[in-house]
Order: sequence, then structure tokens, then C-alpha cells
Amino acid sequence: MEFVDCLLVGGTVVTMNRQFDIIPDGAVAIRESKIIAVGRSADLREQYQAAEEVDCSNQYILPGLVNAHTHVPMTLLRGLADDLRLDVWLIGYCMPTEREFVTPEFCRLGAGLACAEMIRSGITTFADMYYYEKDVARATADAGLRGVLGQTVLKFPSPDAESYEHSLDYAAQFIEEWKGHPLITPAIAPHAPYSTTQQILSECAQLAVAYDVPILIHIAETKLEQDDSMAAYGRPVVPWVEEAGLLGAKVVAAHCVHVNPSEMKILHRHNTTVAHCPTSNLKLAAGIAPVTEMLKHKLTVGIGTDGPASNNDLDMFEEVRLAAILAKTAANDPTALPAREALLMATRQGAEALYLGDVTGSLEVGKLADIITLDAGPSHNMPQFHRDPNAVYSRIIYASKSTDVRDVLCHGRWLMRGRQLLTLDEPSLLKAAADYAVKVDAFLAVREKDTLRKLLAIGGLEQGESFEVQVKVRVPDDLVMDRLLTHPDVQILKKVHYRQYDTYFLFDDPDAGRVRYREDDLMGDDGEVKSVRTRLTYTTPSKERAFHSAVLLSRSRFLSKADRPLRFYREYFQSAEVQELQKDRQRWHIFYQDVLFYVNLDELLKPAMPQRYLEIKARTWSSSDAENKADRIQEMLRILEIKPTDIIRMEYLELQDTDGVSSRGGETPSQ
Amino acid sequence: MEFVDCLLVGGTVVTMNRQFDIIPDGAVAIRESKIIAVGRSADLREQYQAAEEVDCSNQYILPGLVNAHTHVPMTLLRGLADDLRLDVWLIGYCMPTEREFVTPEFCRLGAGLACAEMIRSGITTFADMYYYEKDVARATADAGLRGVLGQTVLKFPSPDAESYEHSLDYAAQFIEEWKGHPLITPAIAPHAPYSTTQQILSECAQLAVAYDVPILIHIAETKLEQDDSMAAYGRPVVPWVEEAGLLGAKVVAAHCVHVNPSEMKILHRHNTTVAHCPTSNLKLAAGIAPVTEMLKHKLTVGIGTDGPASNNDLDMFEEVRLAAILAKTAANDPTALPAREALLMATRQGAEALYLGDVTGSLEVGKLADIITLDAGPSHNMPQFHRDPNAVYSRIIYASKSTDVRDVLCHGRWLMRGRQLLTLDEPSLLKAAADYAVKVDAFLAVREKDTLRKLLAIGGLEQGESFEVQVKVRVPDDLVMDRLLTHPDVQILKKVHYRQYDTYFLFDDPDAGRVRYREDDLMGDDGEVKSVRTRLTYTTPSKERAFHSAVLLSRSRFLSKADRPLRFYREYFQSAEVQELQKDRQRWHIFYQDVLFYVNLDELLKPAMPQRYLEIKARTWSSSDAENKADRIQEMLRILEIKPTDIIRMEYLELQDTDGVSSRGGETPSQ
Repeated sequence: MEFVDCLLVGGTVVTMNRQFDIIPDGAVAIRESKIIAVGRSADLREQYQAAEEVDCSNQYILPGLVNAHTHVPMTLLRGLADDLRLDVWLIGYCMPTEREFVTPEFCRLGAGLACAEMIRSGITTFADMYYYEKDVARATADAGLRGVLGQTVLKFPSPDAESYEHSLDYAAQFIEEWKGHPLITPAIAPHAPYSTTQQILSECAQLAVAYDVPILIHIAETKLEQDDSMAAYGRPVVPWVEEAGLLGAKVVAAHCVHVNPSEMKILHRHNTTVAHCPTSNLKLAAGIAPVTEMLKHKLTVGIGTDGPASNNDLDMFEEVRLAAILAKTAANDPTALPAREALLMATRQGAEALYLGDVTGSLEVGKLADIITLDAGPSHNMPQFHRDPNAVYSRIIYASKSTDVRDVLCHGRWLMRGRQLLTLDEPSLLKAAADYAVKVDAFLAVREKDTLRKLLAIGGLEQGESFEVQVKVRVPDDLVMDRLLTHPDVQILKKVHYRQYDTYFLFDDPDAGRVRYREDDLMGDDGEVKSVRTRLTYTTPSKERAFHSAVLLSRSRFLSKADRPLRFYREYFQSAEVQELQKDRQRWHIFYQDVLFYVNLDELLKPAMPQRYLEIKARTWSSSDAENKADRIQEMLRILEIKPTDIIRMEYLELQDTDGVSSRGGETPSQ
Repeated sequence: MEFVDCLLVGGTVVTMNRQFDIIPDGAVAIRESKIIAVGRSADLREQYQAAEEVDCSNQYILPGLVNAHTHVPMTLLRGLADDLRLDVWLIGYCMPTEREFVTPEFCRLGAGLACAEMIRSGITTFADMYYYEKDVARATADAGLRGVLGQTVLKFPSPDAESYEHSLDYAAQFIEEWKGHPLITPAIAPHAPYSTTQQILSECAQLAVAYDVPILIHIAETKLEQDDSMAAYGRPVVPWVEEAGLLGAKVVAAHCVHVNPSEMKILHRHNTTVAHCPTSNLKLAAGIAPVTEMLKHKLTVGIGTDGPASNNDLDMFEEVRLAAILAKTAANDPTALPAREALLMATRQGAEALYLGDVTGSLEVGKLADIITLDAGPSHNMPQFHRDPNAVYSRIIYASKSTDVRDVLCHGRWLMRGRQLLTLDEPSLLKAAADYAVKVDAFLAVREKDTLRKLLAIGGLEQGESFEVQVKVRVPDDLVMDRLLTHPDVQILKKVHYRQYDTYFLFDDPDAGRVRYREDDLMGDDGEVKSVRTRLTYTTPSKERAFHSAVLLSRSRFLSKADRPLRFYREYFQSAEVQELQKDRQRWHIFYQDVLFYVNLDELLKPAMPQRYLEIKARTWSSSDAENKADRIQEMLRILEIKPTDIIRMEYLELQDTDGVSSRGGETPSQ
């Protein structure tokens, strides 16, 4: 009789070994962290004297599941903002919140909460990519889970580093601190090709090779990423990262939704592995990864939940099931990715994808005791048929739920028994997470109301002018302009002609100001567009004061480059109303009696207006300067032979609603 | 103070009414079967005196979910055979098992088990299509669930009817018995356009209109169905059923995976509703239904789990989540089918799809009390953000699990409290289901081993010849044939020339016999293929006895038309080995001394062989007749100047492995 610590007996042992052995009334013997024996209950009972014998009747005994790609601290951002386009979600919500909140404490707490959820759903090994990965490691080791934990490297400043050099230093430190830990494999995580450079990828790879640790990276998640790579470098993402020398390291490439067969060959040549994340890919409309084809190319493919901010949970049962059924429709073949192969990807092959195939992923003698038990007979999974040996896999993949997981062992240590967590204080994790949520809610709520803050959150805002004197008049036609332009007191400095497409985002709150997305198409003499400029202006409500016929407007105006598509801003600002304005504008910069004025002659194209409009404007800095300029505007109106009744005090936006005089102030499109 | 039976208080009431009101710290008052009031807890507590007050703090109070399409008795076939092509699954496993087992008792038990699972996952209303629907109704009413239950009508005999007229009679009887029941809406379920006729559809519609009951039907589930409809009728499925008059009834069209915009317009014109079943569609590789487009066409679309034999569970949380994320990738837009709209499809819109929108699907005064509560704070769904009111929907759709459902009320009656089922004896249902599974397993196990039974299961088998005398020889070239054909004792009756493509399914068990799928391409004089014939032969191992150089083979041989593609048989028989053989065959029917013989001159193309082979064969009925024919074969071999060493006793299949003499018997390709 040999002594062992624990004997799991009487369950159906689903080994996931090379022969896919299934042992009815089977047992697993465990000593310290390792599996000592796998076999029939009767045989193992004869051979071993166990300190503890655990009855697993009516249960499947399975290797712990491997979650090949996630971002665990993001449990704290779960459900923060959903059903949004990737850029709105990422740039509008996720990144600003991360900039504000991500700290070592945040990462430790979020990772702890994630570990609780993962243990509950039968995961014993996971691969993570986030910031402050030392704290993720601490939380993971405390929870008793196995983690391949990648410290993020970006070309931009990130919550835990001012530059990529800092990230790399941090990563090296992290690796030195954690390498050799029985549960933690430190790793380096250059975020993605588009958020790094070949230089960064090369340095990451060198560091990873030097320390013999894996690289975790997002590859070809979206079609846009591939299109951009083609446009910028004339080739797809995979050859580009290959050229950077990345694939010389032990790389786990997450997503690979848009890789072509020749890229698959490159990945295979370098033994790069893949983490398939079907829920996230569907939810973000990234597409369907060609899993069946990748497997045909003999790639090692694991399955990952991705982060809980884009999934929104860490349920490997849902994930594997989706992987299995989605592959069938993608391949137009219901026999594609059968249940056994799907489970393989979530166990042994998943472990291989994380370069841990020698220690976990299957129930085999010598491997670490990463084991779960699963209720084999809940009502949603009854009855059971035994004719087809593959039925066991089918039952596990197509009808089991994560809540059927009963016990979890990792590295020979009990993490859950009878659905009671043993290594984590779940209530206090939940309490601390709730406290964070209150703070994040408050932060976002203020920002949501405050359009200026929303603008600041997406970057690149600068303060524009604050005071302006201006007049706007109806004119019968273009010809009136000659009276002014040929006048001896007038000197023309510059003339431009453009089409201006304005989109106004209007808010219900009168204090909210308004945001304008503006596209200027500069027109050449031939009537062709010469160049296009897009800008964003944010204007607070203006105060106005009349000076003769002109008005002095005081207001705050902010400008920023509009380097995202209009669609982004539309979804991001979620304004109560959106209005469009298009005009053809001829604009002169003139000196009138040596004072600079801007004169715009506008034709409204949308809403179409029969009249032309003329605006005369000047910047101003003081009340006396404003008065002086208002007087000169008055003189110019006389030169132009404008009748007082043709002076209008409305903005273009309001012209479509009325045709009379309005006392309402607000922004007047300027420049 | 008004009296009510029950007050649910302190939960977040997610009404799913037209305004999508969400009431934090909300309450619902119930009297008998109905919702009396919905509002803030404080207000309802002031207004109503409740016989029972239920604390729902930390819970969502939701309308019960509506499962718009399923086949509940098929719980008893759950996981019976997975990862198979539709035809293999349906014709090879499902239908034979149904023919053998489906009885009123089976349907009642399967429906009961399904009700247990559905209550556990928060479903209070479902639409069913199966056989013996009276028994499904009995089980459903006993469980206390609301059901729209459709009696299946098929053009073939079914487990409960010899013909469609019988089904219609049964349906009328069923309707008369159950119409007006508070929980049960009887319905008629013509299975699908391809499994009925226009005549049947028309009669079903007339009956449905006469009784004012809904019609449930599968429409455009696969591309094949559309292709076949185009080929047979020159138009897609929907206009074809419209022409049959089907859409005059209140139709629920399940699947609609392959409907084009003009078909959507037809469905909308007739107020036909749709049941979307994403899991089943993915798993059977049917495709992705254009849900976003259907909703744009203002179709009323519910969500269904489909039957547990093709899902494999009845979990609406999984189903709705998949519907929401799949629609995003299908529309290439992550804002498509947001969480709120997905939940709407599973509640109010689902009820409308089943023509029950006036009585269930939302928490509104006057509607029936079909209500569930859902744990709002399990660790897989924490923390909670409150900034965005839509976050509640997002939490329910993207991160809640069916096991978070806590209490279920249907028609004002408690069906589950604290996850304890109140109307069903779950252990005895599970026990009875397990007993069925043992019987089904045994039935299929026998059939699996017995290739002949497997053949019989797919129909159309006939017994072929049993005794044959034959000899096979190597010949140097085609020319030897002239010696025989020009011999005065020989009269040529017929000559044909064909290419024969044989696929052998070989089994490990030596008693299993072998199946051959055979395609004969008849060649014209011009070398072109004139016609193609495919057949299936099943041959038991033969006994052989030598007569001079010839052998007498005795065996059973069965023939059937092979009207399915080769791929079907490959997947259906799952033989240990598959071998292919191709030959070019010239075949003469001759009289030799007025006795009929068949002479084949074969060139093996695959595996390619340099020699030609010549076979002489005759059917025989008695030992003396066999001996007589063997003598004549001996004479013909002399005429052909064949050396005894050129006589071979192997089948073509074995030639590729050896080049010598083999004593092994077995089938020789004949004819």
C-alpha cells in the first residue's frame, strides 16, 4: 500500500490524455501537488491508502479548464458600457476609466474577484494581459490558481508606465520576482501590433527569449487591423510581426479572427499558439475566427473568455460551447469541431497553447493535480446515453453549465468544495468591488453630464477664442460684395472658398453647450476639392451684448482635431438632437482701415436657402475694442448698402425654423 | 387598503412595458392569476394588504421568459447523437428512435422533464411542436406552465398518425379538448414546407382559422430547403407557403435562417411572426438568421431554444445572450440588437410572437402574473454600475445565468421558490427518464452492431442473390477476350462498358459484413458518360467452396438504392475502415453452350494495376448446378489459354496489399 493525500473515487474520469481514455467508476490519486495514479476505483483503492477519500459518484472528474486569454482586473469594469462600437467603448469609456482608476489595488481586487468567478466555473489555469501584473500575480497566487500573467507593453503611456521602456523595465522586474513560482508564469504582453511598433515587439521578444517566458499579444482581432496593416506596410499583420522578430519567442496570439492561410503557415512554422475568444469576437462584431482551418493547419488553439468588460463573464462552459457550435456554421459543416475536440481545446490543447502542456491540461500520472468535478446528472443534462463513448464530451460541452462544477483542485490544493470557495473571501471581494463601482459610476456620471469633460477624455482639446464681434445680414446676391471689396478703405489679405459640412450635437440641458463636428472641403478654382479638414468645436452658451447692429459675443470655445469618424462622435456624445448644416462659403481676410476683419459670404445648401448671407466678424479683447470694431462694421454695412431690416440676429441653425428676428443667443458658426 | 394575494417587494422591477420602465426598490402586487399593480415598494405597501409579502431585495423582478420554439419531449433524446450532419442525425438516429419509442407516455414524461428544466431557467411560456400533443398539454398544465402546443402534421406516417388526415383529425380533437384552458393554447404544427404539401398546409390553415388557433411551422431553416424550393417550384419557400394559403392563419415561423427581404415583406404583410433559434442554427450549421434585418422589416421575432436534441438544453439565458452577440457579428455592427432589445424578444415581443402579447410578456397591470426573480448580485455579475439605465439589461443578458433564477410564478401560481420546484417531482421524472435512456441505448446498441439493421433503418432494402460460381484470372491484355468471344460455343447477348466507383465500409467485427456504395457510370461508344446509377450493397461474410479452379460463394447480399450522398453513408456507418476501388469494366452477358455467364474484363484504375483481370461468373441454385457451371468455366479458361498460376483467389480489395495467393474469402465484387 502506497500512501497518497487524496483519492477521488467513483466518478467518470475524463482523462483528456492522448488516447482520450474515459474511465467509468474511475479514480485519481493525488500526492502533494501531483497526480500519482489514474484508473479504476477498485484498482486504485487496492493500491493506495488515502488520507482523504472523496466520493465522486454521479460526477465527471475532469482536468481543470484552461482560459487561454483574459484581462482579469477588468471584472471591475464589467458591464460598464455595452452595445457600443469598439472605439466608443475603448476610447470613450474604458480608457478614461482606466486612466483614472487603475492602480495596484484595483488590479489586485479585480483579479481576486475574477479568480472567485473562474474557480466557480472550473478554470484552474488562465492567461492574463493587464497592468500592474505583479498585483495580479499576488492575487492569483493567493487564490491558488495557475496563471500565465503578461505585463502589458504599449507605445502610449499606460496606467502603470509612462513609456514602453518603463513597461519593459517593469516586466523584467516582474519576471525576476515571480519566475519559478509554482503557480505563476510571468510573461510579457505587447498589447497588439497596432498599439506597439516593430522596435517594441523586437525588444519584447528579446526579453522573453532571454528569460524564457511567453509573449501574450492580440493579433488580427479585426478586419480594420488587417486593412490598416496592408495600407501602412503592404502586408498583413502576421508577416509584419514575424519580420519584427516577435515569433522567435513563445507567443500566444489572441483572437486571430482575420488570419489567412499563409499567415497560419507562418504561425505554425514558429510554433506560435492561438487563443480563440468567440464571445468577445461576436459581441464586438469582430467576426468569426477560422478555427477549423487553424486546426487543419495544425496550430495549437486554446479558448479564452477575453476580459469581463467585453464578454461579460469568465464562463468557460459558455465559451467552449460557443466555440463548438460557431465553428460548425463557420465551416458550414455540423461535424466540424466536435465536442471532444472542443473540450480538448479547453484542457490539454489549451495548456499546450500556454506552453504548460507538460504540467497541466489532462489527468495523467506526473501532471499537476489541476482537477475539477462536475455534476453529471442535473435535470438540464438528463437522461444519459452510453452507447456512444463521445456522448460524455457532448454532455459536457453542449449541456453542462459552469454552475454544475462542484469541486476544484489546483496544484493539489482544494480551491472549492461543494461550491464553497476555500481560498477567497468572496463577500469582502464583492463589497470592495461594489465600492469601486460607486466611484466609477460617480466619475462617469459627472463626465457624462459635462460635455467638456467628455471631450477632454478623448484627448487633444485646446482653448480657442473667447470674444467676438459680429454681424450677419441677408444679401440679395454675390454682387454686393464688390461694393465692399473695391472700396478704397479695404485691403484684401486672403481669399478662400470652401464647402463646410457642420454636424451639431445639441443637448437638452441649456448649460451643456454644444459640440460641432465640422468638415471643411477647400475648393480650388476649378471647383474641385483640394483638401479636407475635420475639426471639433465645443462652445458653451454665449452671452451677447448689442453694439449698434453688431453684437459682442462672449463665450468659451474649445477646439480639437476630429481624427475619428463622425459616427464615433454621434455614438459617443449621444446628444438629444443632431442637426446638420451645409454651406458654400467664400471667405475674405481684409483690413478695413487697417483693422483685421473676416468676411464670409455664405450660401446655405442644407437646409437650402434662396438668399445669400454675409457675416463680418472680428476677434476682440476689450469692451472699448469691441465698440470700436462694431462702429467699423456699421460703416461697412453702409458701404454694402444693407438695409437695417436685412440684419438678422439668428444663427444658421435657427434659420430653418423661422424667418424673422430672434432674441436667442448662442453660438454663431465662426471662421 | 385593498387586499392582494402576494406582494413582491424590494426588487428592481424590470417591467419590459412600452416605456421600458425600471423601478428600483419596486414591487408587484398579484391577485389570483393577475398583476394588480406595479410600482415603488413604498407606494404598493401603502395601497395593498398582502396575504404574503416576498422580499426580493438584491433581485431583479422580471416577466417570465418566453421560449418561442422547442420540442419538449425530445429531452428524452438529449445528447443521443451529436456532431452529425442533419440527415445522419435525423434519418439515422432520431427518426428510427422516435418510430420505436414515441408514445403518449414518452411525450408526457419528456414534457415533464422539460418543464422542470424550463422552470429552473426562468421560462413561463413556451411553444412546442411534437407528437401526442395532448399528453404534452397534460404534462404542461400539471407543471403549471403556459404552452402554445402544436400537434405535428406530416406527409409521412408519424409516431402518432398513419397519415396527415389522421394528424388533422387528432389536431381537431386536441383543440376541442384544450381550447379555453387557462394555460394551454392548442395549435397545429405542419412540420415544414418540405415535409408537407400545399394541400396539407392549406387544410391546416383552414382548421387553424376555423378554431382561431396558431400554426407553428419550420420555415427556411437551411439553404438546402430554399435551393430545393427554387428548383422544384421556381420560387423561395415563403411565397410558396403564401400561395398555399398558410399565412392567412396566425403563423409562428421557426428559424427563418434563409429568408430574403422580399420574403420578410410577405411575412410582415400577413403578420406572420418568427421564432429565432440561434444555438440550434449554429450547431446544425444551418447558418445565421438575419435578425436585425427582420426587425428592421418590423417583424415580430421571439427567441427559441429549439429541442433539446439539437441544442442540447432549454436555457433561454444562453439563447438570448447568443442571439444578442451573434446579431452583432452578422450585422457587422456591435450596436446591433442591444441587450434591451434582446430581452424584449425573450419577453414581451416573444409573447407577441406567440399571439399572447395581451396576456403575458411584461409586468403590467391586467396581465397574467408570469413572473421570475433573478439574483442581481452573484459574483459572476459584480460589481454593478448604475450610470447607464441600460446596464440592467446588459447585466441580465450578458452576464446572468439561468441558475441565477430564484423564484418562478406562472398564472399567479408558484412553480419554484428558492430554486425548489413546487409542482413537479423532479427525482421521479429523472428516474423514469433514465429508464427510457437504458432502453434507447439498448435499441441503438443492437442496431449499431448490426449493419443490416442500420441499413433497414434508413429504408429501401431488398434481398439480392445468394449463390454464385466464379473465377478470376490475370490476363496480359484485352486481346485474350477475342479467343472466347469468337469461339463457336459462345453467343454474345449484351455488352456494356462502364466505370465503377466502389467505396467499401469495412468493420472490425468479422461478422459485421461489409457495405459497398457503388456508382456505375455507363460509358457510351464515344467515351462519354451516358448515365449514372448509385447503389448500396450489404454483404455478409461468404462461405466458399472450390469447384476445380472456380469457387462457389454462398452469402447473403442485400441491395438498396443509394439515394443519399456518399458522405451520408460514410458518416452514418462510421466503419472502422473505408476503402475505395475504381475500375473500368467491360461486361458481356454470354451463353456458353446455352448457359448464361457474365464475363467482366476489368482494368483497375484505383489502386492502379498494370494487368487486366477477367472474371467469369454465374448465378447458381444448387450444388450440382454449381458443379456443372464450374466445369464450363474450366473449359472457358482453356479456350482463353489461361495458365493455372494466373488464377487468383483474392478480391480486388486485397490485391493492393499483396500480389500472391490468399486464402481469405469474403465478398467479390459481382456484376
